[in-house]
Amino acid sequence: MRFHTRKWVKPEDLNPNGTLFGGRLLQWIDEEAALYAIIQLENKKVVTKFMSDINFIDSAREGDIVEIGIDVVNFGKSSLALRCEVRNKMTRATIISIERIVMVNLGDDGKPKPHGKTKIEYVKDRLEK
Amino acid sequence: MRFHTRKWVKPEDLNPNGTLFGGRLLQWIDEEAALYAIIQLENKKVVTKFMSDINFIDSAREGDIVEIGIDVVNFGKSSLALRCEVRNKMTRATIISIERIVMVNLGDDGKPKPHGKTKIEYVKDRLEK
Amino acid sequence: MRFHTRKWVKPEDLNPNGTLFGGRLLQWIDEEAALYAIIQLENKKVVTKFMSDINFIDSAREGDIVEIGIDVVNFGKSSLALRCEVRNKMTRATIISIERIVMVNLGDDGKPKPHGKTKIEYVKDRLEK
Amino acid sequence: MRFHTRKWVKPEDLNPNGTLFGGRLLQWIDEEAALYAIIQLENKKVVTKFMSDINFIDSAREGDIVEIGIDVVNFGKSSLALRCEVRNKMTRATIISIERIVMVNLGDDGKPKPHGKTKIEYVKDRLEK
Amino acid sequence: MRFHTRKWVKPEDLNPNGTLFGGRLLQWIDEEAALYAIIQLENKKVVTKFMSDINFIDSAREGDIVEIGIDVVNFGKSSLALRCEVRNKMTRATIISIERIVMVNLGDDGKPKPHGKTKIEYVKDRLEK
Amino acid sequence: MRFHTRKWVKPEDLNPNGTLFGGRLLQWIDEEAALYAIIQLENKKVVTKFMSDINFIDSAREGDIVEIGIDVVNFGKSSLALRCEVRNKMTRATIISIERIVMVNLGDDGKPKPHGKTKIEYVKDRLEK
Repeated sequence: MRFHTRKWVKPEDLNPNGTLFGGRLLQWIDEEAALYAIIQLENKKVVTKFMSDINFIDSAREGDIVEIGIDVVNFGKSSLALRCEVRNKMTRATIISIERIVMVNLGDDGKPKPHGKTKIEYVKDRLEK
Repeated sequence: MRFHTRKWVKPEDLNPNGTLFGGRLLQWIDEEAALYAIIQLENKKVVTKFMSDINFIDSAREGDIVEIGIDVVNFGKSSLALRCEVRNKMTRATIISIERIVMVNLGDDGKPKPHGKTKIEYVKDRLEK
Repeated sequence: MRFHTRKWVKPEDLNPNGTLFGGRLLQWIDEEAALYAIIQLENKKVVTKFMSDINFIDSAREGDIVEIGIDVVNFGKSSLALRCEVRNKMTRATIISIERIVMVNLGDDGKPKPHGKTKIEYVKDRLEK
Repeated sequence: MRFHTRKWVKPEDLNPNGTLFGGRLLQWIDEEAALYAIIQLENKKVVTKFMSDINFIDSAREGDIVEIGIDVVNFGKSSLALRCEVRNKMTRATIISIERIVMVNLGDDGKPKPHGKTKIEYVKDRLEK
Repeated sequence: MRFHTRKWVKPEDLNPNGTLFGGRLLQWIDEEAALYAIIQLENKKVVTKFMSDINFIDSAREGDIVEIGIDVVNFGKSSLALRCEVRNKMTRATIISIERIVMVNLGDDGKPKPHGKTKIEYVKDRLEK
Repeated sequence: MRFHTRKWVKPEDLNPNGTLFGGRLLQWIDEEAALYAIIQLENKKVVTKFMSDINFIDSAREGDIVEIGIDVVNFGKSSLALRCEVRNKMTRATIISIERIVMVNLGDDGKPKPHGKTKIEYVKDRLEK
């Protein structure tokens, strides 16, 4: 799994107990899944369709740095299934883990549309073509 | 299921496709589950531990009003299991539905602590005692 | 008065004294009045026109839960007058109270337009018709 | 009346009708009143106690610049009464006007405390003393 | 240099060290430069093109009030060069200082367009014409 | 240069011209520089001290994905100099580039403190020691 996006836990991200607000974490994950799907499917019209069980394994505290990892589970015809793990950047302790996030590729009419992709591509390779 | 909190979908809540950003919706749900648990358990130290499968059934558009419903699934010893549904206030179309959200009651040491609750209570009744 | 929307007072809602920032509270009230009017008038183009005296009776602290109640004062021809009270969910102590909030129903041209409503309606009844 | 703080109306400040969200405007006003009182009373513990009738005279659109003016109505023993007007910076059209905003000076115990001020002072003069 | 816009440093503006988050301060400066240019050039399509060295001389703490000053360095053909200083309102200690911020005037095609301005104008004078 | 953090340009990130608000971009860069320095210096008390010239080379539009790259320029005794580039993830077009961002390592007394680091370290290697 590749970990890219990093977040610095600031006061605006805390719940009243002083730990990272779970809702903020879910927001970060959904954004990361969306942008990962947009990159892979080369289509900006992508929506979240499903998330499997979410275990809040650990939390984070003010000033912690967390990193968000995404991996591909499989390419569907008009969808893309991802796996996500968020961990503490310094200790690598897992904070949250989601086995399956399904993103759907939409056409201009807002309906699912085949994307024609079958494997992970890197922007670098696309640009060199 | 009782629907309380309502949200007005404003420009700051949209994804770049012009529909309600899924991450924002998850943030609203997590906040509603947390405050519902705080009310029932009469303890401010409550954290989200688990969410079951999330189906994004429908979306919402700018200017829509959504309402968030919470129901109790069961009271554990130091936890509370909730069910959540978000729907469009005007059409009642379901937007998202989560069968099980587990909130954990914490003691001052940050560890799970029995809450002694076994059924839904209303603040009204507590205050009249 | 019916209390629906609930808010959890988080660090991002505080003023530098550590109590609920008054401006945030006014923002919540205006949103609640707007969405209540949209529901009653069945029109998304509704704007706030007037608020009567605002008494900041009590404040709220981090981790408190507040609930916002709205009641109809009267239906005008192209307006709707509301009353609003915000209270602490757990103690029922009043935090703020506004006797009159006037919302105006707009037409597509942005000008006041008669809404034809004379009494409170419930979405449930509308949908059953 | 002196107009200081200026705001640029950005997408995050709009309601779903595409005009400046009233709640955002009230938040800006409350912040300006608070900081004006802090400057005059030379005390950071200042809270909003009262606002008189609020007339939403005009609105603002995306990209507009609004400026917020504050004036002193009178100095109480432990309070300060202000007047506020918000207008469009380019056209000077009044957007909102509030005749009386009462800010209260608090002591360390959180109770009203005499502030000893009787007239407007300028920071410049204080620093030159 | 004239100081207009004032900001109250709230919890949402802090970094995890409890001081004003530098990124928030840069955001405030960019907004102030943009609206200053819009006022002077009488054109809403203005973008930031360049900022010279930024020295973070001092910081601010929760509850502090900062004020943002802007001055014109010179009028280019389709640009406007500004100078900016942010200081603590109560002590006048400089927090940050930027010698040159270049704003560019755009036409409807999104390309630089001559603005025809050569000196500072006041809205008051424009309206009296 | 390694590019990690990615951002999805959402409506809340836009200026009134519909392009990425420069102030938001500066906020993202400052956060990325801070967390990079925290990771390298293994100290949470790190502040931004200086940024060299900033060229806004290109902008980004709603729905674009941008990625933020950071590189080390050199390790000072109690500081760390970084270089930053932000580019469009899909086209690799550079959006902004900053040659030198100086972060300072602070001790508990808030004063600069030697950090003892002389070269880039990877968390992976630290954890394997």
